[in-house]
Amino acid sequence: MDLSKCPPLTRVSVQEAHRRIEPYIHRTPVVTCQTINTIASTPQSERSENRSATPNGTHALSDARPKVKLFFKCENQQKIGAFKARGAFHALGRLIEEDGIDEVRRRGVCTHSSGNHAQALALAAKQFNVPAHIVMPSISTPSKIAGTKSYGANVIFSGSTSDEREAVIQQVIKDTGATLIPPYDHPNIILGQGTQALELEQQVEDLLFRDSSLGVPGKQKLDAVIAPIGGGGMLSGICTALAGTGIIVFGAEPNFEGANDAEMGLKQGTRIEKVKTLTIADGLRTPVGEIPWSIISDKTKLQGIYSVTEEQIKSALRLVMERAKLFIEPSAAVPLAVVLYNEDFRKLVEEQAGPGGWNVGVILSGGNTTVEAIAKLFAASESSEERAQGTVGIDGERKAENVAG
Amino acid sequence: MDLSKCPPLTRVSVQEAHRRIEPYIHRTPVVTCQTINTIASTPQSERSENRSATPNGTHALSDARPKVKLFFKCENQQKIGAFKARGAFHALGRLIEEDGIDEVRRRGVCTHSSGNHAQALALAAKQFNVPAHIVMPSISTPSKIAGTKSYGANVIFSGSTSDEREAVIQQVIKDTGATLIPPYDHPNIILGQGTQALELEQQVEDLLFRDSSLGVPGKQKLDAVIAPIGGGGMLSGICTALAGTGIIVFGAEPNFEGANDAEMGLKQGTRIEKVKTLTIADGLRTPVGEIPWSIISDKTKLQGIYSVTEEQIKSALRLVMERAKLFIEPSAAVPLAVVLYNEDFRKLVEEQAGPGGWNVGVILSGGNTTVEAIAKLFAASESSEERAQGTVGIDGERKAENVAG
Repeated sequence: MDLSKCPPLTRVSVQEAHRRIEPYIHRTPVVTCQTINTIASTPQSERSENRSATPNGTHALSDARPKVKLFFKCENQQKIGAFKARGAFHALGRLIEEDGIDEVRRRGVCTHSSGNHAQALALAAKQFNVPAHIVMPSISTPSKIAGTKSYGANVIFSGSTSDEREAVIQQVIKDTGATLIPPYDHPNIILGQGTQALELEQQVEDLLFRDSSLGVPGKQKLDAVIAPIGGGGMLSGICTALAGTGIIVFGAEPNFEGANDAEMGLKQGTRIEKVKTLTIADGLRTPVGEIPWSIISDKTKLQGIYSVTEEQIKSALRLVMERAKLFIEPSAAVPLAVVLYNEDFRKLVEEQAGPGGWNVGVILSGGNTTVEAIAKLFAASESSEERAQGTVGIDGERKAENVAG
Repeated sequence: MDLSKCPPLTRVSVQEAHRRIEPYIHRTPVVTCQTINTIASTPQSERSENRSATPNGTHALSDARPKVKLFFKCENQQKIGAFKARGAFHALGRLIEEDGIDEVRRRGVCTHSSGNHAQALALAAKQFNVPAHIVMPSISTPSKIAGTKSYGANVIFSGSTSDEREAVIQQVIKDTGATLIPPYDHPNIILGQGTQALELEQQVEDLLFRDSSLGVPGKQKLDAVIAPIGGGGMLSGICTALAGTGIIVFGAEPNFEGANDAEMGLKQGTRIEKVKTLTIADGLRTPVGEIPWSIISDKTKLQGIYSVTEEQIKSALRLVMERAKLFIEPSAAVPLAVVLYNEDFRKLVEEQAGPGGWNVGVILSGGNTTVEAIAKLFAASESSEERAQGTVGIDGERKAENVAG
């Protein structure tokens, strides 16, 4: 994909991208959850699960008191289970327009990925009957290999270092002439990922038109959107989509083992190029790409990035599952974790939004995990029964037995 | 609630119930999942996860080959996380109409439940500012006690046997004059629970009008609905709602330790009054109530009840979470388990639907479970990676490590 032929990184280009991919993707639902709104709008020290930790309420005065109504964009229910389908369909669609379908079918497309981008490109290629060569580390999880193959892609295995992957992908390009579709560091990918923000913006207006009580008083639209950032394709796409609308964009990152490379990069004024972390938010382990960086480091497009701990991600993940009843992967819980637990973010919202509060879009980026992976995350954790016990006090005689009724 | 004042158990009464409760409940979404449709329409022995188990394909010829498109009614996203909100709002609304709001507020309402009905009645009572007294076994899970109290209900503890609960509830009625709102064995509850079928019927027609590819070829509406049965309030309500529409209704039950009391009762022609089971589908451990029985044992209203094993329930639960990305409780997975794994049911669909297939509504009745409970169910199970490995064959070098990208 020739960079010089790419559309400019503007809202209008995202709108064009949306028209191009609309027939092939899901317009994923936007859902609200009153319980989570209430928790998010309560100072941390006053929440019931924390009451026993702050017996004299000394924290309460300093804790932020933002008022928010949250609108969850369910990209976990997107095709292939994550937003990545958007960028893949857009990049392939543009390539076909530039070079013609016959030429693209003759050469094919390729990428390297062990995750959602592999399946997304495989699905898009299948739709247009284009050969897809996907380089995957041989240690990739078998279900993802099987998923990619199930769309008819040619899976080629490599070692797991970036040098090893690079060598294999170069060989594939040399052998087949396939066009590389990168996972995030490309304008066509960025424009595709940005399309979810256009839907979210419109869906929230529609929801508030039908039932204004879903939002904060007197507002008919979104005030802000918060999205996860790994390679930055999605966050920079959302920034591009919403530029000039007045809707403020924030990024959310894990901070385990330096996974908050984007947050730290913004602080020091230069992009951090290498990250080595095993955060549970496994979709966010990559450093920000060059083109996404050029967008998110523009203060007129992104207001800031905030990070959270592994435990905060787990708490947000639990709430989305147990309260909103949605099945998501850990990466998708990171933005809600910022809204619930990052005091810097919460103070900012309290100050900027004022007593009226904000309508905040929260991107649930994907749902590609397994019940076993969830079991591993929560098997040894303090149970919600035990946490609830804190609020139940002495009334409940606690036993393990289940009772029907 | 005077039985003689209850509306007749007809579709028109369910429609009236729906108008009454609509302002207070969610019109829960209906979702489809292509992957699950494909699995459900594939003979069991030809599914990839079973291939290694049937190396010579001998099962394939005898296995049923139904064609189905499924429409999931997401009552897991109903208020209080389960369909029970419908019956509680309807029963209380009717009571207020019969006796007047002042009288109902003076006397209050009461029930005994350790589960979703307790929270549902507490929520409905709070809405109308009516005192609610809820008798709960002292061994109830603390989160459910806390949930019930959070709606302002007066929780009274009892022993866990039905005699002990009955004694306490009689004392509460004597002391307060509160009106008993039973969990399922009452016409007003049955009519309320039936309202979800009216929404499902209309929502499927709307979906198929916009995108006919979501359904089987040439059909604009539902052919059948399958719902779980415990006490039978919901299933009998759905039968009532759909009577005369031509939409066929089926029930789904666990068969662990005799939990399939309704299925066995229909076979022997008499209601089974006692059940003692610890099936993981803990919402379905109760025997069918008398009034629900009178409806579901009418062959013109219910075509049949089918049961499944604990492992089949777990498999269906996994698919709803991992593929449809919805968080549900085990009871809610039972109907899908029947569609996927009960050969009697599958043969019936194959025969009755023919090669064109059926559009089938599947009730996801609730989502009130915890990540720890899910962890317990799947911690020791064969992982999906291992199962996927069966289809991946010799390509994948299997290691536990995770890779970003």
